[in-house]
Amino acid sequence: MTSSHFVDQAVALQPDGDNFFTGAAHPAWGNMVGPFGGITAAAALNGVLQHGKLLGVPISLTINFCSALAAAPYRLQVLPVRTNRSTQHWTVQMTQAGADGADETVLTATAVTANRRDTWSTDDVPMPRVPAASELERRNLFGVEWIKRYDMRLVQGGVPAQWDGSGDNSLTQMWTRDDPPRPLDFVSLTALADVFFPRAWLRRATRVPVGTVSMTVYFHADAAMLERSGSGHVLGQAQAQSFRNGFFDQTAQLWNEAGDMLATTHQVVYYKE
Amino acid sequence: MTSSHFVDQAVALQPDGDNFFTGAAHPAWGNMVGPFGGITAAAALNGVLQHGKLLGVPISLTINFCSALAAAPYRLQVLPVRTNRSTQHWTVQMTQAGADGADETVLTATAVTANRRDTWSTDDVPMPRVPAASELERRNLFGVEWIKRYDMRLVQGGVPAQWDGSGDNSLTQMWTRDDPPRPLDFVSLTALADVFFPRAWLRRATRVPVGTVSMTVYFHADAAMLERSGSGHVLGQAQAQSFRNGFFDQTAQLWNEAGDMLATTHQVVYYKE
Repeated sequence: MTSSHFVDQAVALQPDGDNFFTGAAHPAWGNMVGPFGGITAAAALNGVLQHGKLLGVPISLTINFCSALAAAPYRLQVLPVRTNRSTQHWTVQMTQAGADGADETVLTATAVTANRRDTWSTDDVPMPRVPAASELERRNLFGVEWIKRYDMRLVQGGVPAQWDGSGDNSLTQMWTRDDPPRPLDFVSLTALADVFFPRAWLRRATRVPVGTVSMTVYFHADAAMLERSGSGHVLGQAQAQSFRNGFFDQTAQLWNEAGDMLATTHQVVYYKE
Repeated sequence: MTSSHFVDQAVALQPDGDNFFTGAAHPAWGNMVGPFGGITAAAALNGVLQHGKLLGVPISLTINFCSALAAAPYRLQVLPVRTNRSTQHWTVQMTQAGADGADETVLTATAVTANRRDTWSTDDVPMPRVPAASELERRNLFGVEWIKRYDMRLVQGGVPAQWDGSGDNSLTQMWTRDDPPRPLDFVSLTALADVFFPRAWLRRATRVPVGTVSMTVYFHADAAMLERSGSGHVLGQAQAQSFRNGFFDQTAQLWNEAGDMLATTHQVVYYKE
């Protein structure tokens, strides 16, 4: 990959024998601990997309984050465990050398890819009526490195201005696109599925320690819809459903500027206190 | 397991060496092709729950259905791939002998378990105001064997009375409990996460061929909440978000009779036409 875009740099993989790739966390995507989970998820999906036996396009992706990724190389095992006539099932594991030198699993994933065919189609959740991205001011959500990789325009539900315990809901709506702009693809869409800051911070106006443990993306966009989306902003809407004894969930939707639903995504997040 | 309840019969596993179990599809849970996916997902989770190295309780479970389960024994590999201080990551694979005798993967799964601790907690999506289960008539949704394993009481969004293409939304609300009643646990809750009939049938009033390819359950209930729920009905609410070129998604919530959110769950489903 010769592109110099931050997304391509971060998800770049080198083939390392059958069903294996190597890669490394990229400093441009630093988060509080390790890199932004969304870009790590995107790199895992890229292993599937780069695999010589790939059938079709991504339909679903689930990533389980076992530990923070260290600023070091990783190895990615990407296995097509079952190939049917029009669908294909994948398992993925990312490993890094641990403190004692032995390989440790830092991420597990599963994915389904498929050859889509034209069918009756409709979106059942319309894009909310919000101001266009061009009518809103660009504003970075909070001060970590990966946030600089995005042009974010908040509609509602930003990071609380005061951490005073005053929150009463967990809904965020915002437009986001890569900075610099980059035509949307499955890799960048995967990263965009994780751009929302922790719902626990918004709901409680309290900045507690958090970490995503599992994240799933359902891709509704096919290659043609991605191409139509170009490098425009993507509207994201995210909300928690339950906060319970150390874990909360998040359900989210992503639309392109034309109002087509690109993806729906869910995650469950550890929180302390 | 000596219980004669249909749920326990269907998820029963025999240890088969380190990290392996054997089991078999149960005829009481027959669906259109193979058994009800929810009970197969429950059996996969049961492999984690029965594993000698289990830490904590289920937080998330993702099941990818690679093919219909045959009416034959299966082998379940259950691996604790990473154990942290309070969380544990699992990979699961179910295999069956294929037509040529070689093992084929019929299901892959990942799970996260964790030791929960008491924290600030709240539900951000309240249970909808609906009539109590006791005020509604029991009615089976449609005519397959596994439906008889449940006491279902529909609030809204049942299987269309006429397949006339007249549908205009995909929302179902219904109360469900095991029949005969059985105290709720993580296994039966997993199966309940899959009791909704295909959203494509409701949205279109058209009975197209369908099959779930991936399903995720986030468990908000801990053991204490499950015990409080007893063998009461569980309110389920399910809705599609997008139907697009062969695949639609479903997002759903489950509450106990007291209005506590037990789980949130998502799936992506293949459909034809």
